[in-house]
Amino acid sequence: MDISTRVIKRILIGRPLATDEAPHQTISKTVGLAVFASDALSSVAYAPGEILLVLLAGGLLSTWIALPIAVAITVMLVILTVSYRQTIFAYPSGGGAYIVARDNIGEAPAQVAGAALLTDYILTVAVSITSGWENVAATFPAIRPYQTALSAATIVFMTIINLRGVKESGRLFAAPTYFFIGMLFVTMVTAAFRYASGSLPVIQHAAETMEALRNSAQSLSLLLVLRAFSSGCTALTGVEAISNGIQAFKEPKSRNAATTMLAMSALIAVNFIGIVFFAGKMNVLPQFEVLADGHIIGDSAVLPYMTQALFGGESIFHWMLVVATMLILMMAANTSYADFPRLSSLLAGDGFLPRQLTFKGSRLTFSWGIVGLALASIALVIIFQGSTSALIPLYAIGVFLSFAISQAGMVVRWRKTSTLKPGEERQEEHSLLRYDKHWRIKMAINAVGAVMAFIVMIVFAVTKFAQGAWITVILIPTLVLIFFRIHHHYKGVALALSLSDRKLRPHRHDMLTIVMVDDVHVGTVQMVDFAMSEGNPWMAVHFDDNPIKTAKIKSKWNERMSDSGHDLTLVPCPYRNLSETAVEFVQSKLAQHPDRFVHVVMGQLVMDTWGAQALHANTNVSFYLALQSMERVAITNVTYQIHKPEPEPDAPLVAVPAVPVAAATAAAIPTQAAPAGATGP
Amino acid sequence: MDISTRVIKRILIGRPLATDEAPHQTISKTVGLAVFASDALSSVAYAPGEILLVLLAGGLLSTWIALPIAVAITVMLVILTVSYRQTIFAYPSGGGAYIVARDNIGEAPAQVAGAALLTDYILTVAVSITSGWENVAATFPAIRPYQTALSAATIVFMTIINLRGVKESGRLFAAPTYFFIGMLFVTMVTAAFRYASGSLPVIQHAAETMEALRNSAQSLSLLLVLRAFSSGCTALTGVEAISNGIQAFKEPKSRNAATTMLAMSALIAVNFIGIVFFAGKMNVLPQFEVLADGHIIGDSAVLPYMTQALFGGESIFHWMLVVATMLILMMAANTSYADFPRLSSLLAGDGFLPRQLTFKGSRLTFSWGIVGLALASIALVIIFQGSTSALIPLYAIGVFLSFAISQAGMVVRWRKTSTLKPGEERQEEHSLLRYDKHWRIKMAINAVGAVMAFIVMIVFAVTKFAQGAWITVILIPTLVLIFFRIHHHYKGVALALSLSDRKLRPHRHDMLTIVMVDDVHVGTVQMVDFAMSEGNPWMAVHFDDNPIKTAKIKSKWNERMSDSGHDLTLVPCPYRNLSETAVEFVQSKLAQHPDRFVHVVMGQLVMDTWGAQALHANTNVSFYLALQSMERVAITNVTYQIHKPEPEPDAPLVAVPAVPVAAATAAAIPTQAAPAGATGP
Repeated sequence: MDISTRVIKRILIGRPLATDEAPHQTISKTVGLAVFASDALSSVAYAPGEILLVLLAGGLLSTWIALPIAVAITVMLVILTVSYRQTIFAYPSGGGAYIVARDNIGEAPAQVAGAALLTDYILTVAVSITSGWENVAATFPAIRPYQTALSAATIVFMTIINLRGVKESGRLFAAPTYFFIGMLFVTMVTAAFRYASGSLPVIQHAAETMEALRNSAQSLSLLLVLRAFSSGCTALTGVEAISNGIQAFKEPKSRNAATTMLAMSALIAVNFIGIVFFAGKMNVLPQFEVLADGHIIGDSAVLPYMTQALFGGESIFHWMLVVATMLILMMAANTSYADFPRLSSLLAGDGFLPRQLTFKGSRLTFSWGIVGLALASIALVIIFQGSTSALIPLYAIGVFLSFAISQAGMVVRWRKTSTLKPGEERQEEHSLLRYDKHWRIKMAINAVGAVMAFIVMIVFAVTKFAQGAWITVILIPTLVLIFFRIHHHYKGVALALSLSDRKLRPHRHDMLTIVMVDDVHVGTVQMVDFAMSEGNPWMAVHFDDNPIKTAKIKSKWNERMSDSGHDLTLVPCPYRNLSETAVEFVQSKLAQHPDRFVHVVMGQLVMDTWGAQALHANTNVSFYLALQSMERVAITNVTYQIHKPEPEPDAPLVAVPAVPVAAATAAAIPTQAAPAGATGP
Repeated sequence: MDISTRVIKRILIGRPLATDEAPHQTISKTVGLAVFASDALSSVAYAPGEILLVLLAGGLLSTWIALPIAVAITVMLVILTVSYRQTIFAYPSGGGAYIVARDNIGEAPAQVAGAALLTDYILTVAVSITSGWENVAATFPAIRPYQTALSAATIVFMTIINLRGVKESGRLFAAPTYFFIGMLFVTMVTAAFRYASGSLPVIQHAAETMEALRNSAQSLSLLLVLRAFSSGCTALTGVEAISNGIQAFKEPKSRNAATTMLAMSALIAVNFIGIVFFAGKMNVLPQFEVLADGHIIGDSAVLPYMTQALFGGESIFHWMLVVATMLILMMAANTSYADFPRLSSLLAGDGFLPRQLTFKGSRLTFSWGIVGLALASIALVIIFQGSTSALIPLYAIGVFLSFAISQAGMVVRWRKTSTLKPGEERQEEHSLLRYDKHWRIKMAINAVGAVMAFIVMIVFAVTKFAQGAWITVILIPTLVLIFFRIHHHYKGVALALSLSDRKLRPHRHDMLTIVMVDDVHVGTVQMVDFAMSEGNPWMAVHFDDNPIKTAKIKSKWNERMSDSGHDLTLVPCPYRNLSETAVEFVQSKLAQHPDRFVHVVMGQLVMDTWGAQALHANTNVSFYLALQSMERVAITNVTYQIHKPEPEPDAPLVAVPAVPVAAATAAAIPTQAAPAGATGP
């Protein structure tokens, strides 16, 4: 990395942090709510709109059912909150679905939970950011054509923030979260006051909109209600985030995390029901369009229309809410930036994902995970053209699947504690099993959570299957299969490399060094110096693919390299297939002596810039690729650095001499930076 | 290259040819006409249409002027033919504009000619192939939407043919060229016969077409006539091809080439004038469209409409002509496949283009040049959406510029011969100067050629500037600048590497080998074996970026590697910036001893497949990039091959064990294939 790259990286990413600075990167309850609860909390910005959008297919009159649906979803939220609080106390070191499943049910369900969650973290980023821009577009319709580009740019921005590390990003986002909560509070209180005083504004929609809706309306079917319920359940995505991130809290971790979870659920419940209730009373509808075939498409935003009606479209308060909504949705996406890298490093640590995901970057963040999340979510935003409604059917299946698996794991765990005597304890890998006299009721709570989550997942998958849920239904098992293939690979490699049941000890081998000579110049002297200094038997070899050139090289060798005490060996290469010839030659030398090392030495001219490097053949790479699969072959590059050369003072840059310069100097120019001859593409 | 890649390459490209098989790759006059003359010859398929298309802007009545324009262009053809025959005899080893200019005027004009010709070779491919498909589309309008894709696919096909080598491709195309010539002959004779007998059919165009034309018509201006003349001059592109390719002919090369050139020019003259004449008599117009703003766009094909009228649209003869036209245009594109690689290898040999262009592939073709030509022309086809008329304004400037430079060079050459006495000879680099008593008249002929070519170029650039000629006007000087920058680079490198005025002799240096240890496993044993066998002072180093992992590695080293007699040196790396730490460490070791070599040895696990390789960190590459710019550092990869591992018999692939396998095996899995620790992206 050159100095300018380093400076740019430092500015964008921040100063490097030492490995032992890690433990200090913990957060308070207040910051924790901002970091981990914003996903669930921000769903109130799109879940009510998504419910209404589905119900509109049943005509305007069916929107009354939004409120009972919101209440049902809130009941579900209460069940999950109670279930997850038990998990938080049982797993103080972090009780995500993956760990709970691995500890209690087994590897396969754990991988399913892992695949489900990773999929959903990616979708959280895509849904939150697109929904954020849809909320802005509700106030500034001019940006509609650029929503996809704006969403992608926002994800890039957030990726940079997150490569700086979780604490900074937590701090950066804490203020906006509370700003949003404050805005929601003011909106709800204002609406409640004006409702009580009978002055709640009611929005009048254009007559042709209503007419189009009447013509398209299906009857209000059970399918429609279930589909609306499924869409609304996206409000519950992210509820599990705190249970994954307990380790990020200050001590006492479990207590702080549990308290934060309660606060979060209460905030969601009040605001979600409040928005749906007042949207009904105020006749607020999301922006929508009735297609020629009767289908309805539209945006997910309702809050901006509500505040427009309550405070006026030009009021500062309305503008503040638009900004706050955008920011909380960025926070929600940020939750995934905390969770995705953490979970993928867990899976990678267990050998189910590429090991690179366990590497911590210079700022102690899992850089590969962050970049992977960003790339995947940008791809989704582009494919689904920045539309939240198009993304929603893919969403939530994964979350509810992981809820179900996690709660099922807890059920198994309570059964295990029941085998202990009162006061007895047993340490498992991630939790301490302890006898609990209330284990039956606690097991029942988790069982209800598991069953409810499973039912919601099935409802979601069935009712949204054709709209896009099929993608997730195929994707999750595919991912699980890939995870196990990766695991299989790593196990095989570990077995192949293991020293534990082998008598293998390091020892000397016979060794022959082969110096591959392409031309005789200053770089060649360096290469021969290296071979002489190594103090091993060596030979210099040139692959003869051009007899005229070879004769010149041979004579230069004899004249210049005689001090090396070695002749230049010529290997015929009439078909100019240098790599194949090299492999055959090395093979013949390996065969001369059992257990022999062959040490292939190549010269490499190193230029200052990539552009200059591209003007040289760099055939070392093709030699390397050909030789690397041979056993007991070591491949060395002896580099020779060429710095920005000064032009000869007597030869102007653009010369028009009577006798051309090119012809005169051509012979002295090496045809390539590589060891021997030339290959075609 | 693995075996399957090699088999595919063999099938597509053919068996490798030895370097000394090169001289046999020469061609007869008959094949030479097919290979080199088809470019100019095929222009009769689009040049008449392009003339008419321009003249239509002046209304239907102005098309009578096409015939005088065709005659003027034919006069130009005669001048060029006479001029170029002189060049062919003066330069028996190949007298392209580049060589003639370099020998007689200087480096800069030679590079201008080179840039001009290379640009035009690319355009020849693009124009010929798009025109070929426009001719087919005139008969099968259904293919119009796919013209761009068909053109690109055709170029890919031709690239494969040409990678096989010039002789085979010459043979492959010889038959179609003569087929086309025969078809033209029959068409012209039939038309002449029916004209003489008064039964020549006259095409009636739809009334609304004529009406649209009347409304759009400008008056017939000089600009319009000059523009039509410019468009028609594209018929002369490729006339120089034979003078470039004399070396490809059988002996006597010059005589054979000159005869072939005469035959070519006669064929062009007769058919070009014939087509324009009969098109006028038969009222043939190309397919065109009058845009709302009065502009006229259209295709270049007229021949198919002529044969449709003469023989009937369903007649076999018409179909045969469509096929023959397509094939001759492919032949024309093929001319560039012979010339572009040849010329670019000349420039590369002189150090003005990347050296890779001088490499001959396994079939003795300049593979890089062929691939470069293909990529550039496909790009043009895609950018200009497969339209010949859109490409024409970029074309021909380069050709006429190179004509002018080449003929100017010949003028200088004749002046040089005038200084010789009768019977005296002087050998120059590419030609033999000999006194010629007719030198004055011969010089005059070349001077007329040069001046005429220059005038045509200026007319073309001015009249077509806004339509696209500006691109070529900018491109050619830009290319010349790039050529000189490349030359400057190679001269600098040659100077830096030259041994001629240095006392440099190979000698032994002090050397220290540093073995970079990431983990202790079977691959590590191999690496330590290598260091021990090398018989040099060495040390084993681990970069400590994770104290827990480091302690484990250290204890494994002590247990397993004690036979090496070396301790494991730990280098602190708290910020996990492994590459920077490695550079600093190597620097400190270099500083300990003047003129010392540091030999860095890294282990590399080599997997069977790219997919498996991607699961390992491959941080060797980032180490290599960081270390390569340090002087006197050699970098070695000791490879260790891991072949498709067998799964343990007692561990099923997808296991659901009570105690997870992953946790148990994780410790034994090396975190990466690389020497030490891990880096973020």
